[in-house]
Amino acid sequence: MKTYVPFCPDEPKTRLSDVMTEQERVGFVYACLADVCDSVDTAGAEPVVLTTQSLDGRAGVADRYQTVVRDEPLTPVVNAVLTDEKKPVAVVVADLPLVTPDALRRLYEPDAGFVVVPGRGGGTNAFVTREDGFRVDYHGTSFVDHVERARKLGCSVEVVDSFRLSTDADEPVDLVESLLHGDGNAAGFVEDRFEVAEDGDDRVSLRRR
Amino acid sequence: MKTYVPFCPDEPKTRLSDVMTEQERVGFVYACLADVCDSVDTAGAEPVVLTTQSLDGRAGVADRYQTVVRDEPLTPVVNAVLTDEKKPVAVVVADLPLVTPDALRRLYEPDAGFVVVPGRGGGTNAFVTREDGFRVDYHGTSFVDHVERARKLGCSVEVVDSFRLSTDADEPVDLVESLLHGDGNAAGFVEDRFEVAEDGDDRVSLRRR
Repeated sequence: MKTYVPFCPDEPKTRLSDVMTEQERVGFVYACLADVCDSVDTAGAEPVVLTTQSLDGRAGVADRYQTVVRDEPLTPVVNAVLTDEKKPVAVVVADLPLVTPDALRRLYEPDAGFVVVPGRGGGTNAFVTREDGFRVDYHGTSFVDHVERARKLGCSVEVVDSFRLSTDADEPVDLVESLLHGDGNAAGFVEDRFEVAEDGDDRVSLRRR
Repeated sequence: MKTYVPFCPDEPKTRLSDVMTEQERVGFVYACLADVCDSVDTAGAEPVVLTTQSLDGRAGVADRYQTVVRDEPLTPVVNAVLTDEKKPVAVVVADLPLVTPDALRRLYEPDAGFVVVPGRGGGTNAFVTREDGFRVDYHGTSFVDHVERARKLGCSVEVVDSFRLSTDADEPVDLVESLLHGDGNAAGFVEDRFEVAEDGDDRVSLRRR
């Protein structure tokens, strides 16, 4: 199944700017992108990077997977894919530091018209649509709206319950999850720079090595 | 399978004190407890509430499920259960606002010696042990240590990848997840008081009604 991975490396991950330099944040998002593409590939699907700018051969991605450059905002660029592409088709966000092939298989396996994974905070981290008319509108709580749209189109809806696919990498606390549970390029990138600190209150935080 | 649910209603959920009064936090943890017990029951297992104080008939729990009062800290109280109880036995934390019977079935189904669900931030939200010698030590990143202990005992280990079971209710942002995805007592409790607010930056937050 073709799996589009939207990617925007301009000023990435500003909510991580308290803990990472801009150069680090760029390196981190490329590492996440490589993990997502590799996991899609290993799960038996076909990753296509949908990027706002040329990847310039970075991250072992551009030389291995199909890349489409379109400098447009997320919603129209994904809707153009949904209009043109044969179904089923999948869209998976690029910033999933805990992604694994097994987690993605749970996205691909169900036969429902619309299979979806929420992100923390109500986003839509991944979906498969088998319905031609489905279109996205990414914004704060897009998950709820996407499920509603799919149901209005008469789709059966299956929600995949996955911690790995629901965990995006927006906040410093998400990097803790990467340290604890990740095993790909993104986890390696974070491990080279940070470790988990525990305070007396049984809470954990990120500490630079 | 007997499923112990440790519960401590004294000064509950202090990290929610910016958004909830103490009385509300008490009501909320009882609502979560009821959801966990009901889900365990519906999933075909047998909930036993392991509480630091009498439930006083609250939350429709005390009158429906077995309750054991032991005013001790979490780690020794769970280890006493692990020492005495026939295996397999399960332990599930009481504050899972997104818990469902289906999510819990994924905990009960695998045949591994140790089946475990991490919480966000490295905690241990749920486990099943089939090994008599397994003991817990709850603290910051207990998940990693528990997996290591089980492996040292020669157990096969299976990690359940569940957003619903990994989401505990510690921070205001977790209440947003409850509003978006919950459908039990805890979600109803939160919905009566809060709604999801979206700001222009595509981030969501909690707003009192």
